[in-house]
Amino acid sequence: MNMNMNMNKKIGLQTIKLDSKPVIIETFSSVGKKEGEGPLKDYFHKVHQDEFLNKPTWEQAETELMRTTVLGAVSNAQIKFSDIDYIFAGDLINQCTSSSFAIKDFGIPFFGIFGACSTMAEGLSLASIMVDAGYAKKTICTTSSHFCGAEKQFRFPVEYGSVRTPTSQWTVTGSGAAILSKEGEGPKVTHITTGKIVDMGVSDANNMGAAMAPAACDTIYTHLKDTNRHPSYYDLIVTGDLADIGSKLVCDLLKRQGVDISKNHKDCGSMIFDTKEQKVDAGGSGCGCCGSVFCSYLYHLLKNKKIKNLLLVATGALMNPVSSCQGQSIPSIAHAVAIES
Amino acid sequence: MNMNMNMNKKIGLQTIKLDSKPVIIETFSSVGKKEGEGPLKDYFHKVHQDEFLNKPTWEQAETELMRTTVLGAVSNAQIKFSDIDYIFAGDLINQCTSSSFAIKDFGIPFFGIFGACSTMAEGLSLASIMVDAGYAKKTICTTSSHFCGAEKQFRFPVEYGSVRTPTSQWTVTGSGAAILSKEGEGPKVTHITTGKIVDMGVSDANNMGAAMAPAACDTIYTHLKDTNRHPSYYDLIVTGDLADIGSKLVCDLLKRQGVDISKNHKDCGSMIFDTKEQKVDAGGSGCGCCGSVFCSYLYHLLKNKKIKNLLLVATGALMNPVSSCQGQSIPSIAHAVAIES
Repeated sequence: MNMNMNMNKKIGLQTIKLDSKPVIIETFSSVGKKEGEGPLKDYFHKVHQDEFLNKPTWEQAETELMRTTVLGAVSNAQIKFSDIDYIFAGDLINQCTSSSFAIKDFGIPFFGIFGACSTMAEGLSLASIMVDAGYAKKTICTTSSHFCGAEKQFRFPVEYGSVRTPTSQWTVTGSGAAILSKEGEGPKVTHITTGKIVDMGVSDANNMGAAMAPAACDTIYTHLKDTNRHPSYYDLIVTGDLADIGSKLVCDLLKRQGVDISKNHKDCGSMIFDTKEQKVDAGGSGCGCCGSVFCSYLYHLLKNKKIKNLLLVATGALMNPVSSCQGQSIPSIAHAVAIES
Repeated sequence: MNMNMNMNKKIGLQTIKLDSKPVIIETFSSVGKKEGEGPLKDYFHKVHQDEFLNKPTWEQAETELMRTTVLGAVSNAQIKFSDIDYIFAGDLINQCTSSSFAIKDFGIPFFGIFGACSTMAEGLSLASIMVDAGYAKKTICTTSSHFCGAEKQFRFPVEYGSVRTPTSQWTVTGSGAAILSKEGEGPKVTHITTGKIVDMGVSDANNMGAAMAPAACDTIYTHLKDTNRHPSYYDLIVTGDLADIGSKLVCDLLKRQGVDISKNHKDCGSMIFDTKEQKVDAGGSGCGCCGSVFCSYLYHLLKNKKIKNLLLVATGALMNPVSSCQGQSIPSIAHAVAIES
């Protein structure tokens, strides 16, 4: 009876094959006004016209954004909080307080996670594992970010009107929540490839895409090798959030290794905005970027079988303003999740 | 062959029974000078006399503290980095940069976690799960904190000489790392009870013990109920880090619910310092407190069979200085890990 329990389920170097294929039975996505005017406007479940969400501070606005996103997912799935065994949540605000305040009244056992903008894929990975291993019937993962809160904390208060560099990225006001289940209908998580930190010495905090591209390259390359798959196996390989500059770089870096993803590669940071029209420089970023894009448009494509196989590769820059001021480089990471419709 | 894979392994409300009992084959603990003069001085693997660890900043000192702690654990276990499938790491510094910089060159797939001072138990839980479920042969979990970095970030720079309240806690300069393995000799993780957030409305950031005690009470009560165990089953029920004030509170709160842990309860924050002699007010705190106390003294007791059963209950205050300044309460959490020698 115990024959399977201790069998190593890792394939290759860094990939786990989830034999039971946990189902993403429901998602919910919420964004701000600007994101709601972008190319994916028809796919978000909720667009908040008021960036304050009726709250007195940016931090409380982000908390409300995540709180209502989780509520939306649970409500649409027609389940109760008590049906959910574990919640995985994370965000960019210091000590991940958007998450802890957002979910504090739900009464669900909670694992706090942090992977910067890679957090959605980290959450999907761990939430899937708990279901696949039989420790949970249902789990939920969620992330958020808020443009004004992030600008205040990482850069300059918006009111200063600071000039931004063309390589900089625009933190998405958004949140996504996905419910994983042992049973039910929907896209299934088949593999996870957990990234290791890659640091090529890039130290320009206004060019996160360049810092994170090598990590995305490493994880995509490893995933394809571990699974013995060709890039064309996937209808879409979606990174998040390399934006316009990092996206070009990851394709170039992989091409040098003999892997061409240019035909089926997209990036959440480039998809969520019309980068030129909406003046967001290189594109979107933030835990809520990949979170809201996956939980809206990408989930829609999978659920409605417009695509069969998706590789979601969320990337994170594991720095803070102090490390940058102290001249440190930007260690980066990327986690991949393979999902089939 | 798949009969066990989808079986729900949860018992009761919040507890997972780890049938394969992952083994903690090695630990390593490092602390600063003050901690090295306290009651547990004979149990730490390394005491750093220089709080800067030869680095130019407090942040880089904490990074070096964790880096050398992980190196110590891996070296003592006589294994290679490539033997380790996953690393779980977290700390108190904004965006958990102590962890990401500490482990960035190890090349181990990395899950970033954040649970404030509960992080060590969160890490032990997830690292055990990966081994128990057969996704990994070996995993490592680590946490750190540094007094000067934490004071600078959360309170006032040490140089200001600010007066502290008697309820305040002293952030431990310390780090712990534990290696979990499918096979080998050592104490075994048998159960994990993952906490849910408890918020009783305490908003005094200088009295974390009071804020966190209800969360510890909730998790201990639930663990005992889920496992159908009496507190006396455990030789020690060790919270971390409620310190002197929170420790008294958790015993009182549990007594009101008919559970008496006063005879076998200890707290990492009260154990690591001679709170009166060493002038640390209520006692120690920080991700590195529970981390270094578990990986030194408690692991020693288990390994040498001086105790048979330990319940480690790490507690975390999920706030930040901004949430406190905005008048918010302090959501708290506690994760329990049952370990047998």
